[in-house]
Amino acid sequence: MRAQLAAFLDRPLTRYTIMGVILFNAVILGLETSPAVMSRVGGIITFLDGLCLAIFAAEIAAKIYARGARFFRSGWNLFDFVIVAVSFVPAGQGFAVLRALRILRLLRVVSVAPTLRRVVEGFLSALPGMGSVFLLMGVIFYIASVMATKLFSQTFPEWFGDLGASAYTLFQIMTLESWSMGIVRPVMEAHPDAWLFFVPFILVTTFAVVNLVVGLIVNSMQDAHAEESNAATDSYRDDVLARLERIEKGLKERG
Amino acid sequence: MRAQLAAFLDRPLTRYTIMGVILFNAVILGLETSPAVMSRVGGIITFLDGLCLAIFAAEIAAKIYARGARFFRSGWNLFDFVIVAVSFVPAGQGFAVLRALRILRLLRVVSVAPTLRRVVEGFLSALPGMGSVFLLMGVIFYIASVMATKLFSQTFPEWFGDLGASAYTLFQIMTLESWSMGIVRPVMEAHPDAWLFFVPFILVTTFAVVNLVVGLIVNSMQDAHAEESNAATDSYRDDVLARLERIEKGLKERG
Amino acid sequence: MRAQLAAFLDRPLTRYTIMGVILFNAVILGLETSPAVMSRVGGIITFLDGLCLAIFAAEIAAKIYARGARFFRSGWNLFDFVIVAVSFVPAGQGFAVLRALRILRLLRVVSVAPTLRRVVEGFLSALPGMGSVFLLMGVIFYIASVMATKLFSQTFPEWFGDLGASAYTLFQIMTLESWSMGIVRPVMEAHPDAWLFFVPFILVTTFAVVNLVVGLIVNSMQDAHAEESNAATDSYRDDVLARLERIEKGLKERG
Amino acid sequence: MRAQLAAFLDRPLTRYTIMGVILFNAVILGLETSPAVMSRVGGIITFLDGLCLAIFAAEIAAKIYARGARFFRSGWNLFDFVIVAVSFVPAGQGFAVLRALRILRLLRVVSVAPTLRRVVEGFLSALPGMGSVFLLMGVIFYIASVMATKLFSQTFPEWFGDLGASAYTLFQIMTLESWSMGIVRPVMEAHPDAWLFFVPFILVTTFAVVNLVVGLIVNSMQDAHAEESNAATDSYRDDVLARLERIEKGLKERG
Repeated sequence: MRAQLAAFLDRPLTRYTIMGVILFNAVILGLETSPAVMSRVGGIITFLDGLCLAIFAAEIAAKIYARGARFFRSGWNLFDFVIVAVSFVPAGQGFAVLRALRILRLLRVVSVAPTLRRVVEGFLSALPGMGSVFLLMGVIFYIASVMATKLFSQTFPEWFGDLGASAYTLFQIMTLESWSMGIVRPVMEAHPDAWLFFVPFILVTTFAVVNLVVGLIVNSMQDAHAEESNAATDSYRDDVLARLERIEKGLKERG
Repeated sequence: MRAQLAAFLDRPLTRYTIMGVILFNAVILGLETSPAVMSRVGGIITFLDGLCLAIFAAEIAAKIYARGARFFRSGWNLFDFVIVAVSFVPAGQGFAVLRALRILRLLRVVSVAPTLRRVVEGFLSALPGMGSVFLLMGVIFYIASVMATKLFSQTFPEWFGDLGASAYTLFQIMTLESWSMGIVRPVMEAHPDAWLFFVPFILVTTFAVVNLVVGLIVNSMQDAHAEESNAATDSYRDDVLARLERIEKGLKERG
Repeated sequence: MRAQLAAFLDRPLTRYTIMGVILFNAVILGLETSPAVMSRVGGIITFLDGLCLAIFAAEIAAKIYARGARFFRSGWNLFDFVIVAVSFVPAGQGFAVLRALRILRLLRVVSVAPTLRRVVEGFLSALPGMGSVFLLMGVIFYIASVMATKLFSQTFPEWFGDLGASAYTLFQIMTLESWSMGIVRPVMEAHPDAWLFFVPFILVTTFAVVNLVVGLIVNSMQDAHAEESNAATDSYRDDVLARLERIEKGLKERG
Repeated sequence: MRAQLAAFLDRPLTRYTIMGVILFNAVILGLETSPAVMSRVGGIITFLDGLCLAIFAAEIAAKIYARGARFFRSGWNLFDFVIVAVSFVPAGQGFAVLRALRILRLLRVVSVAPTLRRVVEGFLSALPGMGSVFLLMGVIFYIASVMATKLFSQTFPEWFGDLGASAYTLFQIMTLESWSMGIVRPVMEAHPDAWLFFVPFILVTTFAVVNLVVGLIVNSMQDAHAEESNAATDSYRDDVLARLERIEKGLKERG
């Protein structure tokens, strides 16, 4: 029976149905944001949302039953499991956040559609290569946050009051959003030399980000390069070497 | 007669004349924006604009007559047809938008000038390869819009009042315009943990955009690479293989 | 005597002296911006600036005498001539602009230092390849300016009052500076559908700019690629073909 | 004894201990930013920080003793020496800056962790190739600062009051932060033609920055390319040439 269930779950029709349910659920969750719609047909919307959730839960339960422990070995299955499970956490009054997290359920469209899956896998595969640059940026952010907190927490508690506030403000500065008119010019009114801290910070973090992007480009290029050109080149090289070997052998035999 | 007309339309002189009319129309439409000019010679300007439009209409009618149904098979012809047709939609009072759309007529300069045409075709040819990343960004935007609306529509109706407003605000945040000083800092005053939503959103969408650009670069590079280096390499390889074959044959004959 | 003068001008020592004068003039012009310095030693500063200018004029006059009409064939010489000549235009009262233009004289450091010269030549050599994209962006900007003026000149004369104001505002929007909080949100209060104009404008122009950068990268890469790898590859290929030819010939002679 | 000490310092265990001390010191320095923590256990925090500093000093003293003058030949050792030495500069009252600089000590994590070290070395190795573009940007910034100061120092002393203020404002404009709404629009109210200065400045500096990034990409790509493909290609080429030589020799011997 397990095998039958597994076969049923693998059928294209089943997958298309699940995809349809996800898209239908997306519409339902979108309608849920409209007070006008909710005041008129809120009951139906809530019911249909619950139905979609039940279908997802049933699908995942069936998959776990069919595959057993193997189910949890795939990252995508774990992903599906977690984002469906989150929807079952009871959300008391005021737990708007938990209710909002339920919308993450729509991310299942990524795990179901192979094209999107491949894009995300491509993104993820680029991350490890950037690990050490991320680590370095973490170090820079930590040091800069500690320094900014020490230097400016007294005069600008809103922006640099503690390590977290400083890290957030420095992230904003790294994205270049209002860094000068919004933050550094006001700070320079109290600390005229503050630019000695912020301008190098911008230069260093921007340079690190540029290096991340350059690394990404070089990696993608190498992958693409390796994939493409080598088929033709390899067959040509094999051909040349085989012919040369035959000529050598022919000469030797004759010799 | 059709053939004659088609030959006439294909003549360089005809194309240069049309190009001239487009550029003249561009100047006319530019002058139309000046109240000073319009109050003095508004009648002439309107007449000349109508004349240009009549010439475009005549040209397209002639093309349709000359080529028949084949006319509509070319995307560029369809493009010309639509942007000229739009100018004929009667624009009642206050339909400033429709009158503004008439200016799109100047885009015909792109379909007439081969250099610009090639640039646009280059742009368009890059789009399909980015399709799945666009799809993924659409999914991310939809989910983020639903979440933002759920979480912040009550406290910040102007920015996150409904799905459309949220999507617009999130687009603004993705472009990093005033994301922190303008949007996230005010939101964090009401919801101190809002950065847990916005900072990951910025990181994910920026990373996706960077990946789009990287994909574009890799594709262009491969096209350029394939085009250029292979001519020389192929002739060299053919030469080597031909010579090796001749040597082998020569050896065999002698053997 | 002309030949002697030309030899003298080409001497390294002469060029280093001129370079020194330019750098000295840079310091002088920098000091000129300080009211404190000018009030104390303004006379000396003005005199030294005039001296530097006289040296430049003498150098260029000498070059013109030594090389004759050939002098004006080099773009860099013309550049030197123009930026020195500008300093002689009499600047009446209030012609602060003309006085400010004199500072362009310091750009001579670029034409004198070979490294900087090469960088600028590299920049300029990249421009023609981007010509058609620039043309397309010009077309897009003109059309968008006309449309924006038609649509918003009445309600927002400060930003879209005439073609020039619109083009400037659209350039600001293209750089993403305050595009939403500063311009589009206020505009949307009067024209709720304005985002239908601005968001596509941002997408199209950003995409065009990205394509410009991609084009630059691909070009530089090809140049670098062509330069570097071919030396080794060519000598290898020549070697292989020569050897194959000798083997063929040897076989034929023996045959 | 020196050799023993050197061996002891090179042991992995020693390096891991130092790394642990750095991370522990990082936590301590982080806690130091919290007034709540400092008011309760400030004495312990200060003591532990002093302890960490003492360990670093002891380590570096040991290294200098063990290696002698060779110690100062490595850039990383010099780096360690300086950032530890800075912590010993006596910081009087109000020397918040010097106290803040002590946090740079955490940068030692970079010199101790080989991965981070390699990333930083990669960054630094990219700098010399960009030297001439940096020089050119310096020239552009100096000239633009002098011009801006001359033109706008009277009307906008806050932004363009002296060379330093102008350079800072121009840097802000180069990063595109609030360049139009914050700076250029207000300036244009007093000087309507100011865009003739600022828009070209933005175009030129942005183009220079893009060229820097393009140069970085091309360089990284060449390095990656050279590293990767040549191993296989070289062995193939050597093989072909060796075989061709043997065939030639074989033919000659037989001839």
